[in-house]
Amino acid sequence: MKKVAVIMGSDSDLPVVEAAFPIFEQYGIPYEAHVFSAHRTPETTAAFAAAARDNDFGVIIAAAGMAAHLAGAIAAQTTLPVIGIPVKSSTFDGLDALLSTVQMPPGIPVSTVGINAAANAAILAVQILSVSDADLAEQLARTRQEMKNKVLAKDQALQSKLSK
Amino acid sequence: MKKVAVIMGSDSDLPVVEAAFPIFEQYGIPYEAHVFSAHRTPETTAAFAAAARDNDFGVIIAAAGMAAHLAGAIAAQTTLPVIGIPVKSSTFDGLDALLSTVQMPPGIPVSTVGINAAANAAILAVQILSVSDADLAEQLARTRQEMKNKVLAKDQALQSKLSK
Amino acid sequence: MKKVAVIMGSDSDLPVVEAAFPIFEQYGIPYEAHVFSAHRTPETTAAFAAAARDNDFGVIIAAAGMAAHLAGAIAAQTTLPVIGIPVKSSTFDGLDALLSTVQMPPGIPVSTVGINAAANAAILAVQILSVSDADLAEQLARTRQEMKNKVLAKDQALQSKLSK
Amino acid sequence: MKKVAVIMGSDSDLPVVEAAFPIFEQYGIPYEAHVFSAHRTPETTAAFAAAARDNDFGVIIAAAGMAAHLAGAIAAQTTLPVIGIPVKSSTFDGLDALLSTVQMPPGIPVSTVGINAAANAAILAVQILSVSDADLAEQLARTRQEMKNKVLAKDQALQSKLSK
Amino acid sequence: MKKVAVIMGSDSDLPVVEAAFPIFEQYGIPYEAHVFSAHRTPETTAAFAAAARDNDFGVIIAAAGMAAHLAGAIAAQTTLPVIGIPVKSSTFDGLDALLSTVQMPPGIPVSTVGINAAANAAILAVQILSVSDADLAEQLARTRQEMKNKVLAKDQALQSKLSK
Amino acid sequence: MKKVAVIMGSDSDLPVVEAAFPIFEQYGIPYEAHVFSAHRTPETTAAFAAAARDNDFGVIIAAAGMAAHLAGAIAAQTTLPVIGIPVKSSTFDGLDALLSTVQMPPGIPVSTVGINAAANAAILAVQILSVSDADLAEQLARTRQEMKNKVLAKDQALQSKLSK
Amino acid sequence: MKKVAVIMGSDSDLPVVEAAFPIFEQYGIPYEAHVFSAHRTPETTAAFAAAARDNDFGVIIAAAGMAAHLAGAIAAQTTLPVIGIPVKSSTFDGLDALLSTVQMPPGIPVSTVGINAAANAAILAVQILSVSDADLAEQLARTRQEMKNKVLAKDQALQSKLSK
Amino acid sequence: MKKVAVIMGSDSDLPVVEAAFPIFEQYGIPYEAHVFSAHRTPETTAAFAAAARDNDFGVIIAAAGMAAHLAGAIAAQTTLPVIGIPVKSSTFDGLDALLSTVQMPPGIPVSTVGINAAANAAILAVQILSVSDADLAEQLARTRQEMKNKVLAKDQALQSKLSK
Repeated sequence: MKKVAVIMGSDSDLPVVEAAFPIFEQYGIPYEAHVFSAHRTPETTAAFAAAARDNDFGVIIAAAGMAAHLAGAIAAQTTLPVIGIPVKSSTFDGLDALLSTVQMPPGIPVSTVGINAAANAAILAVQILSVSDADLAEQLARTRQEMKNKVLAKDQALQSKLSK
Repeated sequence: MKKVAVIMGSDSDLPVVEAAFPIFEQYGIPYEAHVFSAHRTPETTAAFAAAARDNDFGVIIAAAGMAAHLAGAIAAQTTLPVIGIPVKSSTFDGLDALLSTVQMPPGIPVSTVGINAAANAAILAVQILSVSDADLAEQLARTRQEMKNKVLAKDQALQSKLSK
Repeated sequence: MKKVAVIMGSDSDLPVVEAAFPIFEQYGIPYEAHVFSAHRTPETTAAFAAAARDNDFGVIIAAAGMAAHLAGAIAAQTTLPVIGIPVKSSTFDGLDALLSTVQMPPGIPVSTVGINAAANAAILAVQILSVSDADLAEQLARTRQEMKNKVLAKDQALQSKLSK
Repeated sequence: MKKVAVIMGSDSDLPVVEAAFPIFEQYGIPYEAHVFSAHRTPETTAAFAAAARDNDFGVIIAAAGMAAHLAGAIAAQTTLPVIGIPVKSSTFDGLDALLSTVQMPPGIPVSTVGINAAANAAILAVQILSVSDADLAEQLARTRQEMKNKVLAKDQALQSKLSK
Repeated sequence: MKKVAVIMGSDSDLPVVEAAFPIFEQYGIPYEAHVFSAHRTPETTAAFAAAARDNDFGVIIAAAGMAAHLAGAIAAQTTLPVIGIPVKSSTFDGLDALLSTVQMPPGIPVSTVGINAAANAAILAVQILSVSDADLAEQLARTRQEMKNKVLAKDQALQSKLSK
Repeated sequence: MKKVAVIMGSDSDLPVVEAAFPIFEQYGIPYEAHVFSAHRTPETTAAFAAAARDNDFGVIIAAAGMAAHLAGAIAAQTTLPVIGIPVKSSTFDGLDALLSTVQMPPGIPVSTVGINAAANAAILAVQILSVSDADLAEQLARTRQEMKNKVLAKDQALQSKLSK
Repeated sequence: MKKVAVIMGSDSDLPVVEAAFPIFEQYGIPYEAHVFSAHRTPETTAAFAAAARDNDFGVIIAAAGMAAHLAGAIAAQTTLPVIGIPVKSSTFDGLDALLSTVQMPPGIPVSTVGINAAANAAILAVQILSVSDADLAEQLARTRQEMKNKVLAKDQALQSKLSK
Repeated sequence: MKKVAVIMGSDSDLPVVEAAFPIFEQYGIPYEAHVFSAHRTPETTAAFAAAARDNDFGVIIAAAGMAAHLAGAIAAQTTLPVIGIPVKSSTFDGLDALLSTVQMPPGIPVSTVGINAAANAAILAVQILSVSDADLAEQLARTRQEMKNKVLAKDQALQSKLSK
């Protein structure tokens, strides 16, 4: 099975990013996580991205805040799908990171998820791998059903609460 | 080969969306395009999305403006990767559509590209299909190289122009 | 008397939404509250909305945050008036939810109130029911008068405070 | 049948507002339209609103741009549901009008629709009147079905176009 | 000497507004403060504003948050200069109040100061009264000089601190 | 009678600013207009402002776009009331100019009007001068009444138009 | 004398960027202009930046729109001062480019000028070179004086116009 | 060696600004810091800026919040490069200061760094001085290498952590 790489621009992003890890474990998907910076270690970042397909990665997730160039810098070096997580930092609620991630020029898309949405990035990575993997597709469908059941159970709980 | 579905919320989105079509043709990827509305034809939209994986689709692209719910409504019915194109309408430069598309709740991601970025959505779809398709990967690499060459040629042209 | 339904996209919205309940009790209006998600339980949401008029509901209130599709998803399934409450979540102060709720496409309006304005949503629901109910209209007028008196009393209190 | 009042803050708003009129005619709903300004004719505005319920109005629609106080000024004088249309003027794409209309204080809600969304305001008014009027409800359902059919027809047209 | 009126839309605005009071005391300017709401006590607000010039007021300051109509509602009833203070509430950092206060229609200006800038509103009121009052002008000049001296003293303090 | 000074940061602001001139003429208020730049002619700007009160000015209006420092630079040199007009330039719809004008630090207020609102700035200047000038106050009241009559006439015209 | 490099992300940025060229010519500063893309030609961009100091460049100007990574990508490869010009593209008035350019992470600053402000970028480059070049400093002072004179002449022209 | 001046608009900005000081000490660059206000001590500010080049300064850094005119006011008085630090204050996350600093008119650029980015301002100042100082250039290159090594070490640490 293809691996997923999770790259963060700074180790201060780890508390946001690590929400992705249990999802890979749940689906049995091998993953690596790295601290690579678009600006402080541009060569390492570029080299990792350029070799990613040959190194059996299927998807790269990149998380960064502020002028978030990381996902774009990776996308510039690979034709694998790159998922960008805009990270909220101390100003602008992550709008700077969102626009820096999503507004990519023609030819080099970044698949952007919501602010700090590391879990959704992981699920999207699984969905991408599931396109050619019926087992993953089935697992995803099961998880969706469980999610649905949880919401229905919460509605039941609310009914009990309100009828008191 | 898996197909790509391109869903637009209104036929007024066609001038934006149709930039995707030649890209599918270039890569030899079968595609369908539909006008389905999250709000005006919710059942048709849901039914299409729910059956998409069984109908041999690998990726769904959804384009909508304003309170752009289309990509999310489709993502709610399938575990295929769903790419959202926020369409710019007459106000807010597409910011409403961007936030309505990208800020999805936990569990149901939408892979969002830039405002009106239909060509990038198509390329992202090809990249997703390339994860398990070495031929597509090779084609993507070739196109990247051509894109690079075009930029280098433009730089050459600029040098000629400036040296006059 | 017609009932009001209060739908929230997640039980985490309950602390915001429950400000509506005492208002229904004050006016003697029967209501139901539910946790239904546009994305996690789309069928339940749609089925509830589609049957709401027949089930004696007069107004549906829907509260959701982020890419807040809930009110729109409900409005797509009923011709009852649907009131949307944009819920403030951890980013953008609820602007994402506001735009996702208010910027509906032609034909499917959502009656939008302010960020987290659950009490105002409830009052608006009462106002809608009052159009054909003189008793409710009279009660609303009385409450307005009390509200006015409270402001005047606060002005009096301020005069006392300042004259010391 | 209750009447609908459509109030605009300036006659320059008429090109936006008049999209509401054919909808009232389609549903056989009597309506009046007025140019009343929250700031230039505050007494006329207040008097009209205060007497609206007694004058057999069921809903008041108010359209204004910039620091759009009109809907709020009317809502301050009546307990009828008041629908606010934020009008886009020469700056800020209507964001000023949207926030001035939707962010009402506790106790005095305004039911806000999208920027320049006069047709949706009219449909919302019809939906409000339909709560106690089965004929209107049926008419609304029929129009919804026609709207759905139009989208499906547009999808058919697209299929023909693409298959050429 | 003309009086200044300070009107706040809610007594919850008092902690912001009361920064104005010591400034009036410093300059020996008589003032009144009131809790009047544009939406909850529109008649009282209008009556106060309409009579303000005859009641020897020279300037009216109005503070309100959210869809801040108070300054505009007052300006609609008087030709005295009206100073609006946009109050920051729980969302949008006061941008809603700023736009609702400053973007007035032609003919009815509101003199707007910064978010929560009650002290500046008071100083502006003194400046307005100083146009025809040489004593106030002199006092203002003295205060400016003291303010200047304070900054220069802070610079001196910084030099001492840095040279250690 | 005190004069009003109208300062613009660039002669390209004249088409916006000149809407103020006929208002001064209507009220018989002497005025001067100047092109002074906060950044390109800082000394001239400062000298003019510092001498303005002695030169019989009662109010200074300053219009500038982008990082609009002009009103603040003038306010730093005088204790006369300074009215700032944020001018819309080619980006951000004047939001940059609005924030640069209105968000002044404690002690140095600028009385800010809406984007490009030169006519309202002029009226506000007249209102400020009217505080100690009963004739101006009366003229302002008359103009208000005429404005009111115009709106009422427009409403009449609309009634005629609609009844056809 | 050190050279200035002007890099644009796309040749479509040339109409914005070329406003810089006559300024270099006016000051007798040698310059080069290139079309290099952060995403389409990342290696060329990086190689140029990494060698820039050795190739006798003193300042690099980088212009890009949307998710404008160009200035940051260059700054990551050189310790020369890098000036970023955020270019306005079809959405968001350049806010995306501004935030993507200015919000750089600690350690890798980009000196950002206003939206499309190529002339100001060029002047800033000259100012940087003037730090160790008294001739340039003198030329800059002369140009400032001419700029001042032009504004004063425009004020004179306005006086003539108004006195007619 | 040229000195760097660090000017802050208020001593409340010191906690932000002082991040710059250790960087100057690290590079052995002489610096001064001052509290000068564009609005409260305009003459001192102007005089300092006008004399800065003669007083052996090479770069001026200016930090201010809200309607941040400080950097522009300084740039108006010198042709030295002026670096502006937009300071985040209690509203708008520093967007007001950013736009007030970066959107300078033609002819008077301000080199703007990110919100509160005092350390980056200092590094940019060092980079500017390094244009004609090979030692500084070498030091900057060494620091970059150390920064790179720190990121690589953090990646190593993450690998250890994840492999447990």
